[in-house]
Amino acid sequence: MVYRAVSHSNRGMGLESDINTTNDYYLDKDIAVIYKKPTPVKVTKVEYNCIKSPTIKESFYEKQSTTDYNGIYKGKYIDFEAKEIKKELIFPIKNIHEHQIKHLEKIYKHGGISFIIVRFCINNSTYLLETTKLLDFINNESRKSIPFEYFKKLGYIIKDAYCPRLDYLKVIDKLYFNKEEKWKTLNLNLKN
Amino acid sequence: MVYRAVSHSNRGMGLESDINTTNDYYLDKDIAVIYKKPTPVKVTKVEYNCIKSPTIKESFYEKQSTTDYNGIYKGKYIDFEAKEIKKELIFPIKNIHEHQIKHLEKIYKHGGISFIIVRFCINNSTYLLETTKLLDFINNESRKSIPFEYFKKLGYIIKDAYCPRLDYLKVIDKLYFNKEEKWKTLNLNLKN
Repeated sequence: MVYRAVSHSNRGMGLESDINTTNDYYLDKDIAVIYKKPTPVKVTKVEYNCIKSPTIKESFYEKQSTTDYNGIYKGKYIDFEAKEIKKELIFPIKNIHEHQIKHLEKIYKHGGISFIIVRFCINNSTYLLETTKLLDFINNESRKSIPFEYFKKLGYIIKDAYCPRLDYLKVIDKLYFNKEEKWKTLNLNLKN
Repeated sequence: MVYRAVSHSNRGMGLESDINTTNDYYLDKDIAVIYKKPTPVKVTKVEYNCIKSPTIKESFYEKQSTTDYNGIYKGKYIDFEAKEIKKELIFPIKNIHEHQIKHLEKIYKHGGISFIIVRFCINNSTYLLETTKLLDFINNESRKSIPFEYFKKLGYIIKDAYCPRLDYLKVIDKLYFNKEEKWKTLNLNLKN
């Protein structure tokens, strides 16, 4: 059966919608330039009624080869994946593809800021977990799911607000652009 | 008439193919993590024969809201657009959408490395032109096309090679990671 399509990017994705709105706010206020990448589509049939805007008559959604979001903030490369957990207070690791985890690790190793954002719908809480903490769990624990407590202990809560909707860069500020930390590093460099 | 589609990313795009191969090389050798963004597709009809992999029965290509390529190199955010000029030795500015030029400017202002790569097929030469030089031309010249000489004078040639095919990061190294320049800056910081 053929349905008129709801935009793929809005299929009940509350978290995705919140992040997109927040990114629009960051862009509008010239705070950061962060975008969601388009969902990859493999095209198999095309109709050329008009050469400038052909109609794609058959295509399929493909897996994203990297993560969904990337961009720049205060000169730093930002890269993350966002996931919503509907009915549990655990995060099954299989929710993120292995190549996406490897991608996040690569970004971290190349000096970028990479993380995941996870929303637990049951208690309506949203956490940012750095890639290093995600990898720590995967490499040291035999469990296939990360419990909510791990996010509570080692992640950072992102509070819902009106505008911006989900100010995740506040966490990034605290972690990477904390003035005190910055001065400590600068003083250390001057001493050496 | 309905045609079986050639992959959209390979429709005779020599430059695109060269850049993709080069990015694969950078990724494989762990030099940089730079990807081409998927072409955005607006989906209007979907067939759900299988819930996990629905067939898209009607969709249209959309304009990329940013540029085609972005990623990370030596901790810096990289962002660029690539264009091939088939039959002339000038680069019509309309080849890049206005919002893409604004995007490149934003990236530059936020501390990223942004540029365009242009291939002139007539003399088979490929140039990297920094966003600042592109903006200089647009803001100071009344002409609607950038002549080849401008690229020759203010751009940087990227030489074709076997592997990697189009080593554009060599230019970036020279411009942003020159050791001498780096040491000069470091010494200056120590003196102050």
